[in-house]
Amino acid sequence: MPAPPRPIRRDPEALFKAAREGDRTALARMLSVIERGGEDARTVGRLAFVESGGGYAVGLTGAPGAGKSTLTDRLIATIRQGGGEVGVLAVDPSSPYSGGAILGDRVRMQDHALDAGVFIRSMASRGHLGGLSLATREAIRALEAVGLPLVLVETVGVGQVEVEIAGAADTTVVVVNPGWGDAVQANKAGLLEIADVFVINKADRDGVRETEQDLRRMLEMSAPSAWTPPIVSCVAATGSNVEEVWAAIESHRAAQEGDGSLVQRRERRLEEELREIVLRRLEVQAWARLKDDRYQELLADLLERRVDPYTAAAALTEGD
Amino acid sequence: MPAPPRPIRRDPEALFKAAREGDRTALARMLSVIERGGEDARTVGRLAFVESGGGYAVGLTGAPGAGKSTLTDRLIATIRQGGGEVGVLAVDPSSPYSGGAILGDRVRMQDHALDAGVFIRSMASRGHLGGLSLATREAIRALEAVGLPLVLVETVGVGQVEVEIAGAADTTVVVVNPGWGDAVQANKAGLLEIADVFVINKADRDGVRETEQDLRRMLEMSAPSAWTPPIVSCVAATGSNVEEVWAAIESHRAAQEGDGSLVQRRERRLEEELREIVLRRLEVQAWARLKDDRYQELLADLLERRVDPYTAAAALTEGD
Repeated sequence: MPAPPRPIRRDPEALFKAAREGDRTALARMLSVIERGGEDARTVGRLAFVESGGGYAVGLTGAPGAGKSTLTDRLIATIRQGGGEVGVLAVDPSSPYSGGAILGDRVRMQDHALDAGVFIRSMASRGHLGGLSLATREAIRALEAVGLPLVLVETVGVGQVEVEIAGAADTTVVVVNPGWGDAVQANKAGLLEIADVFVINKADRDGVRETEQDLRRMLEMSAPSAWTPPIVSCVAATGSNVEEVWAAIESHRAAQEGDGSLVQRRERRLEEELREIVLRRLEVQAWARLKDDRYQELLADLLERRVDPYTAAAALTEGD
Repeated sequence: MPAPPRPIRRDPEALFKAAREGDRTALARMLSVIERGGEDARTVGRLAFVESGGGYAVGLTGAPGAGKSTLTDRLIATIRQGGGEVGVLAVDPSSPYSGGAILGDRVRMQDHALDAGVFIRSMASRGHLGGLSLATREAIRALEAVGLPLVLVETVGVGQVEVEIAGAADTTVVVVNPGWGDAVQANKAGLLEIADVFVINKADRDGVRETEQDLRRMLEMSAPSAWTPPIVSCVAATGSNVEEVWAAIESHRAAQEGDGSLVQRRERRLEEELREIVLRRLEVQAWARLKDDRYQELLADLLERRVDPYTAAAALTEGD
């Protein structure tokens, strides 16, 4: 008789334990649990939180087509050459697909899938956008908790959510191309705010110097701070100068570890996360309460234009 | 002796009254008041709300460089040829500039600035992004309240905020170009959700047919609904086929007015606005409360990793 099949679903504690012992299938399932949310996600999150904090997370963001996946792929190779293990989260807030599926131009990364020192997972939007931002933070902690010393977080676009996700890392790399123009123009301020390292990828094209000058001008106009983001040119497709990109990331890490700002940055981020979760809970509680008669009355008044939305909102929240 | 100078600052009631009587400077100031927020904005908003609802708002969105400003400019001309007056809001969530300044490629629109039947105003981010989305709704109502029967709302990019702002209109036009690829890829789902009319601008370039097929495929895959967004090609730069774009907008308007879905859409939007304002008020109230000792204790526990953020958030909100 064949052996009985392994149980497909394990309780979150068992999943966490197995993942900690090196079971990568358990780790993948744990990330699915986190992505889905709910009670099991809370349990896994609690267990991972206590064991996290020992790793280092690098975020990569930039316009679609900037070559983030190729650069991520090269950085994985650089890290592996140094002997370190690495976890990679490929986050796509606009995609409903996730889990095992590595999408489109990420196929390249699958070369590393046979390497036991590399764990790659894509995460996509399940429901609310902000939820993905919170889920990514938990996923980073899960990877840290199972002992991965480095986590690369690649996001797909340069929208607000992508910027939030990338900005949740310890070092944030903003990838641009020579002649970065229209596509990024609309979000330059947001990118400048989160960038610790600028990478001009596809630097074999025309316009590298102009792009570098453009970035420098932007940096000069911004508020002075202890760290000035270096601007590194590379050609990820050929691997040219990718080691300098990694060196810039390591310099930023060393600077932050040296002056204590890493601890401050993590504490600030954790407080922000707490506040966001508090807000989400309040939201859920508020919507539950808004089903009541008082809400229905005010809504009817609003739709008849007897009351404006701000006055109605004030009436609904005045008891708080 | 010269006459005493006119008072520069008028109270919100006087501003609203003057704007209603056709004073465009007063209208511009009223929009500044709305943009700034605060008590005066509430007063103006209350007055405008009661008088609003008689106009029609058309939102235009699409990737930077898609030609939205040029198309908007042409649509203004088309509307003016029909004899109607029109208000235009050019919304840029990423820019700190606003007010009278018409930015960059919007200079062209200034040709219409001498036309008393056209009122153009740019709005930009003052503080929180979501705030601009709410402020835009109030600005649309202000333009309606002073008697402008049509309002065009042009947003700058295709990020989440831009999509929200454009989606607050009665008809939303999504502008793409032949070969719309990477730049929009990341946000196709979001655009599909809000589009009532697709415009392929710069249709004198290669790839119009492929882009149309691509859009059709997307539309076929999406949930069936009463209205199927038409796909109209044009060359805004020359004015070619822009009248067909306007005709498509008017068809959508007629369809919505005919089957009663416009009323439903506006009611749903108003309820969403109410909920968003309620949430913002709860947020402000929550942060005020979070200064207390209990919060500081839990925050210290969190930073020492004695408690995870979700458990801490539950403890902070359990009394609600």
